Amino acid sequence: MRTDRIDGGITAPQGFRAAGLHCGIKANGAADLALVVSDLPASAAAVFTLNLAKAAPVLVSQDQLARSGGRARAIVTNSGCANACTGPQGLDDAREMVRLTATALACPETEVLVASTGVIGVALKMDAVRAGVPRVVAALNAEGGAHAARAIMTTDPFPKEAAVQTGTDFGTIRVGGMAKGSGMIEPRMATMLGYLTTDATVDPGMLYRALSEACRGTFNAITVDGEPSTNDCVFALANGASGVVIDEALYPALVEALKLVAHELALGVVRGGEGATKLVSITVTGAATDADAWTAARAIANSPLVKTAAHGADPNWGRLIAAAGRSGAAFILDRARVRIGPLVLFEQGRPFDERAPQAASYLQGRELAIEVDLGAGGRFSATVWTCDLSAEYVKINAEYRT
Amino acid sequence: MRTDRIDGGITAPQGFRAAGLHCGIKANGAADLALVVSDLPASAAAVFTLNLAKAAPVLVSQDQLARSGGRARAIVTNSGCANACTGPQGLDDAREMVRLTATALACPETEVLVASTGVIGVALKMDAVRAGVPRVVAALNAEGGAHAARAIMTTDPFPKEAAVQTGTDFGTIRVGGMAKGSGMIEPRMATMLGYLTTDATVDPGMLYRALSEACRGTFNAITVDGEPSTNDCVFALANGASGVVIDEALYPALVEALKLVAHELALGVVRGGEGATKLVSITVTGAATDADAWTAARAIANSPLVKTAAHGADPNWGRLIAAAGRSGAAFILDRARVRIGPLVLFEQGRPFDERAPQAASYLQGRELAIEVDLGAGGRFSATVWTCDLSAEYVKINAEYRT
Repeated sequence: MRTDRIDGGITAPQGFRAAGLHCGIKANGAADLALVVSDLPASAAAVFTLNLAKAAPVLVSQDQLARSGGRARAIVTNSGCANACTGPQGLDDAREMVRLTATALACPETEVLVASTGVIGVALKMDAVRAGVPRVVAALNAEGGAHAARAIMTTDPFPKEAAVQTGTDFGTIRVGGMAKGSGMIEPRMATMLGYLTTDATVDPGMLYRALSEACRGTFNAITVDGEPSTNDCVFALANGASGVVIDEALYPALVEALKLVAHELALGVVRGGEGATKLVSITVTGAATDADAWTAARAIANSPLVKTAAHGADPNWGRLIAAAGRSGAAFILDRARVRIGPLVLFEQGRPFDERAPQAASYLQGRELAIEVDLGAGGRFSATVWTCDLSAEYVKINAEYRT
Repeated sequence: MRTDRIDGGITAPQGFRAAGLHCGIKANGAADLALVVSDLPASAAAVFTLNLAKAAPVLVSQDQLARSGGRARAIVTNSGCANACTGPQGLDDAREMVRLTATALACPETEVLVASTGVIGVALKMDAVRAGVPRVVAALNAEGGAHAARAIMTTDPFPKEAAVQTGTDFGTIRVGGMAKGSGMIEPRMATMLGYLTTDATVDPGMLYRALSEACRGTFNAITVDGEPSTNDCVFALANGASGVVIDEALYPALVEALKLVAHELALGVVRGGEGATKLVSITVTGAATDADAWTAARAIANSPLVKTAAHGADPNWGRLIAAAGRSGAAFILDRARVRIGPLVLFEQGRPFDERAPQAASYLQGRELAIEVDLGAGGRFSATVWTCDLSAEYVKINAEYRT
């Protein structure tokens, strides 16, 4: 059993087509409507945002999955408008998007999922959607993954796609995926928009289990600004086109393949975070509990002082200690340790400031690894990926809407 | 009984002297050593940071208060170095600062409190402190509050001082104060550095109770960047020079006066927040519990998306809803309401986007009031003061140390 990266994204597995185009939601003419379709009936699973202000498409997709019993043929997505905080009209609009897509594809209405991303509180331009859906269906293509990946972007500086193939004793399966997300990113159980496809045969319950497992250390372990959004979801479709049936014996191979794709997409989201110039991994060790490890890692990863220090390549490790100390996790200063790249800058109550120049030089890099041991005597650890906080983030978000 | 603002700061009450000067800790020659002294024996109380990575001066001052049973004559403070994460040497240095001050003042060693603020993880320049303490004692002056307020500054753009007098049937009491703090600001039970003095007679237990009460809606209700620091403390000294003894009948008058001074200082800290151009009050109403009200208000007040929108005068109220929805507080979207200044922009599931231009114009102001009703049916509310997030914040913190 081995897994290799392959080219492409959501259409890399057999039996999937996709398309993306401009239908008229975005003012600048960029692509704003994406469609992913399985040619065969497919199992479907999804994880959704824990934000209590769930957007209309989130509520509709949850409902669709419940009604179909975990089956789906298509996921239709618009960018440029989140269709969140839009009241009953928003729900009607999301349902109409589903209906339009089902009609154009001639598939059961319950087997279409829907997602939206963009500005909150603005109504969807349904005229644009009505005209766009038949066109995007007509444009569906087995090479269309790249177009779909572009059409789900908002402030993303580049599209995020990944795919792998895994050889098993029963044949080869492929997993592909795409994601978007640049701001309002701190997925908890679910995340921004992520899409995973596979040509393995997987029953819906197992697909949900595999998806949840694959999200844990990937989509659920990233942050740009500590803001879980109203629209986060990760979808998985499994259409069986490879002929390989995933049973408990092959389950680990499927999870592994999903994880690899999810990892690459999740890191892509952080690399493409609003204003980001660096990818920073924050690893917390020596935590008394698993929850403490995650709490401290998230606190450090979301600290604006840590993120600005990373931006300025400033080896200001005191900010790492301060963030860990106020995180709520058990923390013992005299036993704590801070490592920036390969350099220990603080250990057993003692700073090693003579290493600061070396650390400053390490921090000039684009990919940084930071490790904080809480000194709490436990064996728990967690890694969260974050990015630096730049003046560009402020610029993007001060000017996003007006 | 009436309370009026008066000029001055910590030396406005009778029987207090202060001084501030440059002793050699800051490289740029700015004032970095401050001393506040009561001419009479005084009751003392303090609230300290909840950060588990407590700085050496915090540990030493806690210990001093325990030993003296709530008495103090002086508070010595240096800026430019936090003396945090400095191990046993840091504790020795803080204790030596206390000893030097007690010797120069010829007062009991247990009656000197100590505070530090500045970069974490760097040792105090004790040569500078040793030379500076006798000089700052020699400079003590009943008009010296303004000098002390400058000497405790780090990245603060301006000093924070306030004072009031309250007439009672038994005479007039005065409360004065000063504070510093510009970054790493989200006090929990305690806060950055705050100093309150009064010439009322108050026993130490009552002074602690009054201080805690005064901090709750003031120092504990502000945030610049959601980062409770390693060095936060608010001190109170009461020396009785006015001849007015505070008993339970006069206690409300004392608390009121402390609150007024603390409120003004706390808002000054936010106005002078790193890179801040606006003061924003976030009021949460309709919360199911008191804890929910504070949780949601803090989540909104610390949201980088809300803070950048305030900076850009962008009436992007969806970000307020998103932050409330992910805060962990009970929240019902269909019953929630968002108000920006006098304008309701979202109510009962319905956006009022036609009011966006008016809201954008309101947001051009320097002092903004934002209200979010969680729609959770409760009667609890909370107000937190925050500032906008500007590119200047990033610049200050990316370049603070290097």
